[in-house]
Amino acid sequence: MSSTAVTGIGQLVTCDGTDPDLLGIRSNAALIVENGLIAWIGSAADTPAADAQIDVGRRVIIPGFVDSHSHLVFAGDRGTEFAARMTGQPYDGGGIGVTVAATRAASDDELTRLLASRIDELRTLGTTTVEIKSGYGLTVADEVRALQIARQFTTETTFLGAHVIPAEYAQDRAGYVDLVTGPMLQAAAPYARWIDVFCEPHSPHAFDVEEARRVLAAGAEAGLGLRVHGNQLGPGPGVQLAVELGAATVDHCTYLGDGDVDALAAVAEHTVATLLPGVEFCTRSPYPDAARLLAAGASIALATDCNPGTCYSSSMPWVISLAVRELGLTPAQALFAATAGSAKSLRRTDIGRLVLGNRADLTVLDAPSYLHLAYRPGVPIARALSLTASGEMPAE
Amino acid sequence: MSSTAVTGIGQLVTCDGTDPDLLGIRSNAALIVENGLIAWIGSAADTPAADAQIDVGRRVIIPGFVDSHSHLVFAGDRGTEFAARMTGQPYDGGGIGVTVAATRAASDDELTRLLASRIDELRTLGTTTVEIKSGYGLTVADEVRALQIARQFTTETTFLGAHVIPAEYAQDRAGYVDLVTGPMLQAAAPYARWIDVFCEPHSPHAFDVEEARRVLAAGAEAGLGLRVHGNQLGPGPGVQLAVELGAATVDHCTYLGDGDVDALAAVAEHTVATLLPGVEFCTRSPYPDAARLLAAGASIALATDCNPGTCYSSSMPWVISLAVRELGLTPAQALFAATAGSAKSLRRTDIGRLVLGNRADLTVLDAPSYLHLAYRPGVPIARALSLTASGEMPAE
Repeated sequence: MSSTAVTGIGQLVTCDGTDPDLLGIRSNAALIVENGLIAWIGSAADTPAADAQIDVGRRVIIPGFVDSHSHLVFAGDRGTEFAARMTGQPYDGGGIGVTVAATRAASDDELTRLLASRIDELRTLGTTTVEIKSGYGLTVADEVRALQIARQFTTETTFLGAHVIPAEYAQDRAGYVDLVTGPMLQAAAPYARWIDVFCEPHSPHAFDVEEARRVLAAGAEAGLGLRVHGNQLGPGPGVQLAVELGAATVDHCTYLGDGDVDALAAVAEHTVATLLPGVEFCTRSPYPDAARLLAAGASIALATDCNPGTCYSSSMPWVISLAVRELGLTPAQALFAATAGSAKSLRRTDIGRLVLGNRADLTVLDAPSYLHLAYRPGVPIARALSLTASGEMPAE
Repeated sequence: MSSTAVTGIGQLVTCDGTDPDLLGIRSNAALIVENGLIAWIGSAADTPAADAQIDVGRRVIIPGFVDSHSHLVFAGDRGTEFAARMTGQPYDGGGIGVTVAATRAASDDELTRLLASRIDELRTLGTTTVEIKSGYGLTVADEVRALQIARQFTTETTFLGAHVIPAEYAQDRAGYVDLVTGPMLQAAAPYARWIDVFCEPHSPHAFDVEEARRVLAAGAEAGLGLRVHGNQLGPGPGVQLAVELGAATVDHCTYLGDGDVDALAAVAEHTVATLLPGVEFCTRSPYPDAARLLAAGASIALATDCNPGTCYSSSMPWVISLAVRELGLTPAQALFAATAGSAKSLRRTDIGRLVLGNRADLTVLDAPSYLHLAYRPGVPIARALSLTASGEMPAE
């Protein structure tokens, strides 16, 4: 077991502070990493001896981003659909079928290669933990395959057989819900930590509240944690369902009524509102009101929703810049939501904060201050730090 | 003189087409580069022999971005001002004084090192030509120094002594205009191709139309081409002044009346409206109406305005994604404006289009289609291609 000292840190953002300094910023700090974990944090002047040393040249160290919502196992290209949407074609979830067809047609090797390349990309943008959903297979074999491939890269895998009703079940919605909650769940559960459902009355392809309730109840019965896609395309029952069932997170939260905000605030200890502003950017939709959620006392997270339809960006820094520009968050609130907040939505305490004993998932910013994440939009200033000893995306 | 073949091009975007295919896209194409210039373009199957070969692996090749508006010679940090503005503090141009003080205090070596690092950054984001303005010196010696340093990196240098009225001349505006149009211009002109002025009645720090006219007339007399910052913070005379004087470009164009649009359309052959949507993003301002300009027949360009106050982004891909989301441009129109359009605003025909005899400034996109510039916001898919033979930012 070797140790690595990380020194020359211009600004250490631990995300372990208390409001109003959520970020717990330390200056003149250093870290010791052992076996992929943080073994020591203190003043640079007191740094103990270590087997190796990385000097980050007065740059900023933050917790690696936790991207708690992605759909990265897919094949095919939908750039043309995106361009059409930018000229006014609305999004209703129907394009998912295009990706389903391409994903089913791809080989295991091709899907694995594509996913590996996407994981490389997000690490170069500073993300160190990613949640990955299935949902472009929609058959027992294809959903299981997606989860098995995702599982090679993360423990945070989510069974999303209830992404859309596939075309072949358009006339038999109940039959598809039977499949998802029966044989598909049974086959998928060993490879998934979570179950998720696209609960959205405004899309004919998505699931209504009773269908979603069946899916989530079956998932809970199978031992999976609950996540919900809710209130994306218009007001809907997704938030209330997630709160009622004690889901870890309800994602999107674009259209919230006062009752939804109050409900999320009441369960802030264990249910997070995950905001995905990249989707609103890429679908030219209104943005969620993050400041209202925070003012009410709700817990929030930020994630990319990286997917080929509604947001093909893997960049958490870009999401942070949008959250500051468009959602009314301060740069500190946005960074906290993208690290500790997202970790909370995964019910993880070992990531998202740089404290003793936590994973040494460190991201370095080529900047004098974390403010540059919002101040320098579109510039790739963040990257996951590779530690010679142990920090290279350790097996979870 | 050695030659390099560029092969394996999945999509070649020449930007030499005609409306509605502005982009002049070729498939199965290859290029030969000799001495930094395009010596041959044709079908891959017919590629002549060359001394070296670069296979770009089925990626996209586009003309390198032309960033025709930047303020890259500066020292100091304004991240805190940015964060304050995001909580509601308006922008009126006053923060420029902060950068002036820091820039004057920096050594030549420090300014050169900072600029070199910014040039590296923009090349990694796909930009191959950048215009650089002075304007953070505002003394004869400091303006000349900025231009001399900028000149080491580009021939497209712009004298912007008329950026703001410096604090020490606040009570003697006419005296400062005398300085800018007299001794400062005389000393700066040998190092500048262009002169520019911040003509903005809505900022107490900027220049009114008569002051701006004096500055531009003196610059023309000294042999410099004309550029104007106009109509940024509200309706104003900048566009009309630029048109009247035959400027190559009027930049920002955020607030245009019908008369401004008509005037720009009438001079589309030689005066470009340069849009800088990163500024509207970073100052939370309304966006210019690019579609209205195009519909009227005006020429448009896109640039970053990379500067420490109102847009500290050097990313042309990010600007393109904003132009599609917020300005109503198609991905093709946005890419054309960021290459051939920006080249036109610099009155250059040797860049911005990939045609025989032009500079081989090639940018490669890690994507199957140029659409990904808009489809993948925040993801650094573009980079300037380094050619072993000649393509590495050749001296201009």
